[in-house]
Amino acid sequence: MRVLVAGGDGYCGWPTALYLSAQGHEVSIADNLSRRSWDEELGTESLTRISDLETRVGRWEELTGREIGVAVGDLTDERFVHETIAGFEPDAFVHFAEQRSAPYSMIDRSHAVFTQVNNVVGTLNLLYAIGELAPNCHLIKLGTMGEYGTPNIDIEEGYITIEYKGRTDTLPYPKQPGSFYHLSKVHDSHNIMFACRTWGLRATDLNQGVVYNVETDETASDPVLTNRYDYDGIFGTALNRFCAQAASGNPITVYGEGGQTRGFIDIRDTVRCIELAANNPAEKGEFRVFNQFTEQWSVLGLAQLVEKVGHSLELEPKLARLENPRVEKEEHYYKAANTRLMDLGLKPHLLNEETVERLLLTAMENRDHIHPETFVPQVNWRRPRYK
Amino acid sequence: MRVLVAGGDGYCGWPTALYLSAQGHEVSIADNLSRRSWDEELGTESLTRISDLETRVGRWEELTGREIGVAVGDLTDERFVHETIAGFEPDAFVHFAEQRSAPYSMIDRSHAVFTQVNNVVGTLNLLYAIGELAPNCHLIKLGTMGEYGTPNIDIEEGYITIEYKGRTDTLPYPKQPGSFYHLSKVHDSHNIMFACRTWGLRATDLNQGVVYNVETDETASDPVLTNRYDYDGIFGTALNRFCAQAASGNPITVYGEGGQTRGFIDIRDTVRCIELAANNPAEKGEFRVFNQFTEQWSVLGLAQLVEKVGHSLELEPKLARLENPRVEKEEHYYKAANTRLMDLGLKPHLLNEETVERLLLTAMENRDHIHPETFVPQVNWRRPRYK
Repeated sequence: MRVLVAGGDGYCGWPTALYLSAQGHEVSIADNLSRRSWDEELGTESLTRISDLETRVGRWEELTGREIGVAVGDLTDERFVHETIAGFEPDAFVHFAEQRSAPYSMIDRSHAVFTQVNNVVGTLNLLYAIGELAPNCHLIKLGTMGEYGTPNIDIEEGYITIEYKGRTDTLPYPKQPGSFYHLSKVHDSHNIMFACRTWGLRATDLNQGVVYNVETDETASDPVLTNRYDYDGIFGTALNRFCAQAASGNPITVYGEGGQTRGFIDIRDTVRCIELAANNPAEKGEFRVFNQFTEQWSVLGLAQLVEKVGHSLELEPKLARLENPRVEKEEHYYKAANTRLMDLGLKPHLLNEETVERLLLTAMENRDHIHPETFVPQVNWRRPRYK
Repeated sequence: MRVLVAGGDGYCGWPTALYLSAQGHEVSIADNLSRRSWDEELGTESLTRISDLETRVGRWEELTGREIGVAVGDLTDERFVHETIAGFEPDAFVHFAEQRSAPYSMIDRSHAVFTQVNNVVGTLNLLYAIGELAPNCHLIKLGTMGEYGTPNIDIEEGYITIEYKGRTDTLPYPKQPGSFYHLSKVHDSHNIMFACRTWGLRATDLNQGVVYNVETDETASDPVLTNRYDYDGIFGTALNRFCAQAASGNPITVYGEGGQTRGFIDIRDTVRCIELAANNPAEKGEFRVFNQFTEQWSVLGLAQLVEKVGHSLELEPKLARLENPRVEKEEHYYKAANTRLMDLGLKPHLLNEETVERLLLTAMENRDHIHPETFVPQVNWRRPRYK
């Protein structure tokens, strides 16, 4: 299968590109390398040292004989999108190429506007390019579990059958996203659903949970292929950040009560989910939604797990509660469905002490490169900054 | 009350600005005059001759002694928004300033992207400006009944209480919009709801039905104050276009079966709804949704009404069915709630033969200015054009 991985230089995109290549698919990456420039903007960096994209794919070819094409460009550039789709003729287009940090989107007005324009326009360009040039191409789009928010009823996969005043319909699941980033994903979902219904496109929206862990078999196979490890308050996700905090002798910072419960997924499962979606494409006209997470954790539960494993490594980590910079419920009902990817064959890597230990050891090895000042949440949800 | 009317040069905005001014409010208009340039782009024009904005407000002041301020600029220009909010310090901000044509948004990729960026970014700028500079200002935002689509259950006003698997929650009503324009309004609604919840802003989202009729008491009081009358296939709404077709001896064109049912509202009620919302502001933190229409009509029902009244004026109009350029259900359940504005005191002008006759007479007076070639739908929903 010819698979284009947009955002293939990023945290999820890079291991996905390698995994799909290892499975024998013909893979090409499109990326504008913006994730690297955001690190420069924010004074953050990956805890692991990551090679540049050309070096990465070069080493992959040396090691495996498999070529991964690279197109450097931006999905908001309509000529780039047109040329990329027309030139590669993908069977599946895996779309990771969005600004994916909630705190980044909440920095101020200009970051909110950038996030929504970048994500929405990139996806619109893609929908039109697929619609005109490659109407059979399967769009595999990364969404987020954060689109749903924390409703007081069960979360289903994309749709809900509602009985109301004696009538019934199956409708898009109501969305209550919690940042301008999460909102951009909701906007994308609505746009893609419309394009499927109106133009007969085929799309799978993967509402991914919070991703943790760093390496897959492929990225771990050579230091040049190493994946990025974000631990800062803007791009670092909860478990990875907690491990970096514990490994560097800093307190594990829980926002508020820590009862916030979310779906989580190991990055080794992320790459498998993408292939499962690609191998089992949506029908023409179908907008299919999978909730891509394997288990639910509360933030406090994760922190306590890191604390426990940290002790076994003699790190003496401490939990610290920070005033929550986000506006979110800290105690709430949360029960989300996630059977559709399992039905396609996903065998989850559930979170265990071994995974946490490996993350802690990786962070300890790179301890000298940790900048503790970037742990602190710099962005306050409550304060709109017009800038 | 100090009321800023953004989009105050347009079809709904202009009569609203005059009406609010006539009621004694201190009114200022912000507008980028883009509606006039879209006419130039499309080769369309108002059936009635409309004066330029400066002339309009000048005549209003001569006639009434009431001044209406004018700021020419664009809500996507962050400096303009900042200066306008900081300078006028509105109690209420009435936001009509969006690209409001579904067919326009479906012309091709660039018009879809323009519509979404224009509408979403303008509203984001506004939310941030209100949040930082005028957090008590009541945002009155024009949405559309088209956000809901045509679900098989009753449409409520913004929210729906769902009982599901033994639990209950009141959630945002699921949205199934039918064009990239309608989608932009759904995106806006989600963004505004988030800003209310997160920053404590107060907002009313007016999901307006299809507006018909042309003049209000104020716009009819002097030829210089005349409102625009769009009849073309891009910006003309159903009833107004049908009257222009009948008045010029052209067939009344119904798309498909004509069973498409929607909420409709007389423009004389639009202006009253805005004042009712302004006089009864949302609470701080409240995102309030009103369905702003007064009755449901099918497209075919409207066409038959125009046909009937046309005969009484000896116009001999004929109905013609066109292949539907839109992708929409032509027979469907439709029952939408609209009690909240009535509860605030709205006394509807229901559609009757007198209103249709006046529209027909207006169109007949201006018959020489009708360009029948612009009746024809030029935009096909089914064909994505990458341009």
